[in-house]
Amino acid sequence: MADPRLQQWHKAVFEQDQDTLRELLHPEVEFYSPAFWKPKSGQDIAFFILTTVIDIFEDFTYHREWIDGNEMALEFSAGVNGKSVKGIDLIRWNDAGQITHFEVMVRPLNGLAQLAEQIGERFKQAGLL
Amino acid sequence: MADPRLQQWHKAVFEQDQDTLRELLHPEVEFYSPAFWKPKSGQDIAFFILTTVIDIFEDFTYHREWIDGNEMALEFSAGVNGKSVKGIDLIRWNDAGQITHFEVMVRPLNGLAQLAEQIGERFKQAGLL
Repeated sequence: MADPRLQQWHKAVFEQDQDTLRELLHPEVEFYSPAFWKPKSGQDIAFFILTTVIDIFEDFTYHREWIDGNEMALEFSAGVNGKSVKGIDLIRWNDAGQITHFEVMVRPLNGLAQLAEQIGERFKQAGLL
Repeated sequence: MADPRLQQWHKAVFEQDQDTLRELLHPEVEFYSPAFWKPKSGQDIAFFILTTVIDIFEDFTYHREWIDGNEMALEFSAGVNGKSVKGIDLIRWNDAGQITHFEVMVRPLNGLAQLAEQIGERFKQAGLL
């Protein structure tokens, strides 16, 4: 039986269901980007980054998915402006089914640099940089 | 009860037990670096990279560890030349208890760049670049 939290998460990502995505994010969620050390705090900024990344990634696919209680590790592959990347989402849930910590790691270096550049552009366009 | 494979792996890393490390690596292990897309194949190169990285990392610590059959995801933190990094080891074992695939992802971008530079130096010193 699929984990209901994972089903909701897949719905948010693959159906680009923004209402579901917002509901899943705790108001004070901490978002740890693959590019920067310091996390961004709060539902609004995490929502902005996640919807932006979902939009930037091409052919986004999940592979291995590990679940241990409220801690998940989800392996993915995607394209970024023609470059291939692999990555992992490390997700911590609270007991109410909300995401409180979301950490992303991406390899290789040139794909991560491309992703950081693309996200930076979107931040600028949104007046956030 | 701790997973015996993980106990062996921890021994290889934290006691810098090179015999154990070599025994754990399948002769045709595929090593996926956080910096480059293309994997390196074979026990010798994987052994060289892993011992080099173990030597470069400061204050290496594992955090969350997910195990699903022969697939593991191990979260870590470390320092690289004064920069803090987070990372994940994605390890695939065969049924004989050997590592056949080892993939590493590291964040953030500046820590990964620093790690890639340090490893590049060691490759040069070893005449591998």
